[in-house]
Amino acid sequence: MEPRLDLLTLGVPDLAAARRFYVDGLGWQPVWEVPGEIVFIQINHGLLLALFGDEALERDVAPDAPASVTPGPPPMSLAQIVATEDEVRDAVDRAVAAGATVLKPPQHGDFGGYHAYFADPSGFRWEIATNPGWRVDPDGRAHMGPIGDA
Amino acid sequence: MEPRLDLLTLGVPDLAAARRFYVDGLGWQPVWEVPGEIVFIQINHGLLLALFGDEALERDVAPDAPASVTPGPPPMSLAQIVATEDEVRDAVDRAVAAGATVLKPPQHGDFGGYHAYFADPSGFRWEIATNPGWRVDPDGRAHMGPIGDA
Repeated sequence: MEPRLDLLTLGVPDLAAARRFYVDGLGWQPVWEVPGEIVFIQINHGLLLALFGDEALERDVAPDAPASVTPGPPPMSLAQIVATEDEVRDAVDRAVAAGATVLKPPQHGDFGGYHAYFADPSGFRWEIATNPGWRVDPDGRAHMGPIGDA
Repeated sequence: MEPRLDLLTLGVPDLAAARRFYVDGLGWQPVWEVPGEIVFIQINHGLLLALFGDEALERDVAPDAPASVTPGPPPMSLAQIVATEDEVRDAVDRAVAAGATVLKPPQHGDFGGYHAYFADPSGFRWEIATNPGWRVDPDGRAHMGPIGDA
């Protein structure tokens, strides 16, 4: 099994609200959608975000015995790395204007960068951060760690 | 705020177990790691997966008042799209050998492809699927939807 993620599906309690946040609020244009059912948005090279109803996701996983939808914030975060502290603040402002809730206001972090967390209307957490150890080569190879690592 | 995911962090209850599954079991090599703390694995062009303790993640989000870790399967799935039904079955076999639990055995889905779901040792769900509407252009643009869409 190759180390490759092609599609990240978020199971959301209210698809219309999720779409309003990402599409209308943030201005992220869908690649394709089935109205009222699923919305696909490109979020990196060869990578799509899918917004899908949380109960529909559980039925897709286990049609005969779908799990209950888990309440509370999912134990995960989605991160976007930006170049400057201003970009961290601007992204948070934009997200809040679109309906996000700030969980951690922009601040310096122990990891050496400047970051913030917000929750989207479904409770999924995004981190916006600068990170001095982050670099992506033209061929897509990502680096994370001490500055100057190979 | 650009539509871009750079880092997907999974908050796991047992980092050593998560590392055994992804690194030792699936053979996904870390790009960088801080032993006992965090493991970074490349999972697409410019995209890293981070394995991080679930309590550590909550402390990072809210140092003064970390949320309780949410029990149960996170309302999301990670998907890998492969070319053939054999590849679906092979990926599931490999994951099971590494410690995954099958949630939906390989089978034809309503969406027109062949797919399966498994849970990693932390409960995160992966879908392995063929999808006739999926295509990635050389520049990274992803297509999802009816065959032949632009």
